[in-house]
Amino acid sequence: MDHSSETLAVNAADVREAAERLKGHAIVTPLLDYPLVSERLGFRLLIKAETLQITGSFKFRGASNRLLAAKATDPNLRAVVAFSSGNHAQGVAAAAKLLGFKATIVMPSDAPAIKVANTKGYGAEVVLYQRHSEDREAIARAIAEREGALIVPPYDDPFIIAGQGTAGLEITSQAKALGVTPDLVIAPCSGGGLVGGVATAVKDVFPKTAIYAAEPAGYDDLSRSLAAGERVPNKPSAPSICDALMAERPGALTFPIHRKLLAGSKVVSDEAVLDAMSFAQRHLKLVVEPGGAAGLAAVLAMRGELQGKTAVVVCSGGNADPEMIKRAADRGDPLL
Amino acid sequence: MDHSSETLAVNAADVREAAERLKGHAIVTPLLDYPLVSERLGFRLLIKAETLQITGSFKFRGASNRLLAAKATDPNLRAVVAFSSGNHAQGVAAAAKLLGFKATIVMPSDAPAIKVANTKGYGAEVVLYQRHSEDREAIARAIAEREGALIVPPYDDPFIIAGQGTAGLEITSQAKALGVTPDLVIAPCSGGGLVGGVATAVKDVFPKTAIYAAEPAGYDDLSRSLAAGERVPNKPSAPSICDALMAERPGALTFPIHRKLLAGSKVVSDEAVLDAMSFAQRHLKLVVEPGGAAGLAAVLAMRGELQGKTAVVVCSGGNADPEMIKRAADRGDPLL
Repeated sequence: MDHSSETLAVNAADVREAAERLKGHAIVTPLLDYPLVSERLGFRLLIKAETLQITGSFKFRGASNRLLAAKATDPNLRAVVAFSSGNHAQGVAAAAKLLGFKATIVMPSDAPAIKVANTKGYGAEVVLYQRHSEDREAIARAIAEREGALIVPPYDDPFIIAGQGTAGLEITSQAKALGVTPDLVIAPCSGGGLVGGVATAVKDVFPKTAIYAAEPAGYDDLSRSLAAGERVPNKPSAPSICDALMAERPGALTFPIHRKLLAGSKVVSDEAVLDAMSFAQRHLKLVVEPGGAAGLAAVLAMRGELQGKTAVVVCSGGNADPEMIKRAADRGDPLL
Repeated sequence: MDHSSETLAVNAADVREAAERLKGHAIVTPLLDYPLVSERLGFRLLIKAETLQITGSFKFRGASNRLLAAKATDPNLRAVVAFSSGNHAQGVAAAAKLLGFKATIVMPSDAPAIKVANTKGYGAEVVLYQRHSEDREAIARAIAEREGALIVPPYDDPFIIAGQGTAGLEITSQAKALGVTPDLVIAPCSGGGLVGGVATAVKDVFPKTAIYAAEPAGYDDLSRSLAAGERVPNKPSAPSICDALMAERPGALTFPIHRKLLAGSKVVSDEAVLDAMSFAQRHLKLVVEPGGAAGLAAVLAMRGELQGKTAVVVCSGGNADPEMIKRAADRGDPLL
């Protein structure tokens, strides 16, 4: 089947429009350069540090873009509702707080404590549900009907995808400022809003750059969907430490973008993710959460084929519980 | 005694010259903005993240400025030697490697393992000495004589002070870009090259900004020297976790700068430093080493008097051993 003429949910102009909308709202996160670490790796490693975004993850971008657009079209909107394992929860809660909306967030009862605490800290009401027995979307719909609230989905929404894509647009201008055309850009993938948006922005400016997703082992729905040519769900599997990357299957809107723009998806083990978190602590001086480090884990595994090249890695979130920070600190130095 | 007419070792023009020299060598580190963390604190917290400088600390700036200047005046110079507990060691080793010098570093036998390993990793020869029984300066002088090497002092050198000051010059332009005039700028202090250089650059642009040093309890030689009006050494004291901030007394060149430009020096306990490291992990998503977090510890203690103001905190280094990262992770959340 030829998908080349398919109309995608988001294009580069949508991302540029989102970037205009987010000016003065989201942080332009730095693209960090580590010359001596790169020398030891044998390839140039540039880190897009979304850990330093408001709420500690890229999710604030999409949530703010969605709410700013909704505010412009419906001045009477007062409340929003979202379901999320944690980072989208925080992004929506913080965006709602800053833009003057009441937020209710439906979160799984096993979400990391730091994410639940932060979501409440941003002023949102948190409704907990059982991940394996309750339907979070039904809970969210009931709240939305009761409160006249807007549901802010985690990825399958053009404004969300375009908002996350602003991280990619920043990568293009920051790479140009360094005089670099990346050979590879990689971002963690759950529902695929981030990597879809980033691919949209980066491919528009650097058409030859290869864009990869990174997924946790056992939650490799995108890899298998790309191979199958259609969206397939995850198989029942052991839990992963990447709590942020557990979407059931690629999004209806994001998957066509992935299929058209991605070079592929790299699958990483929990062990590789912990090593990447340790690498980030020791060599990058960054706290990265497990899901946020999936792309870093992937490029460390690709070291051989990356020699002499330039890789941009989106570290997408930094909301790691202290216990997880300690588990990573206990690993040896992956560079020794 | 009136010191106002005293000629200081470094002025703002020297710092600007150093910044020109360091272009393309040192990283322009980001001034990080955390709007929602600031809202919870009640004051605007901006972090100058020298943890993200090459070698994980500001020391690379001064070392590179010293070596670049030496290279320009003596094209035959081939070797350098330095004594340091760790961050200056890494800064000199990395600058030497990148500029083509042989480096020998004299380090105390109790320096953090990560700093010794990194110094060797940058290609330097490491000579260990006993902190309490051997004279590191004599060892360095003997090496310098034998090898015709340039001694690169940790702080008492105009090029070193001016190089560290480039972090302050960047703060001024980055604060202007945010439309902010800081009420306070604070930097950790050992021999005082960093805070002296930063004060020189910041006071030139923002004369009303108060500049503070931060020192560990038991190593409060600057506080007591400012009170005495002359350089006094530390009293024999319990060890501190701030291994980077253990200079014996303020420098001969740095102290006149401190006396003229600083509003004071804040003294912080090991407990406060660990809390600041925990705060950095949880809320700033940064790995900061104990000495590097002294300024952060100080502003967290000054929270009451900072309400509504803007504080720029230099987090000066991130070379924390995994054990220290874990000790910080075990602290509770200082914001709760």
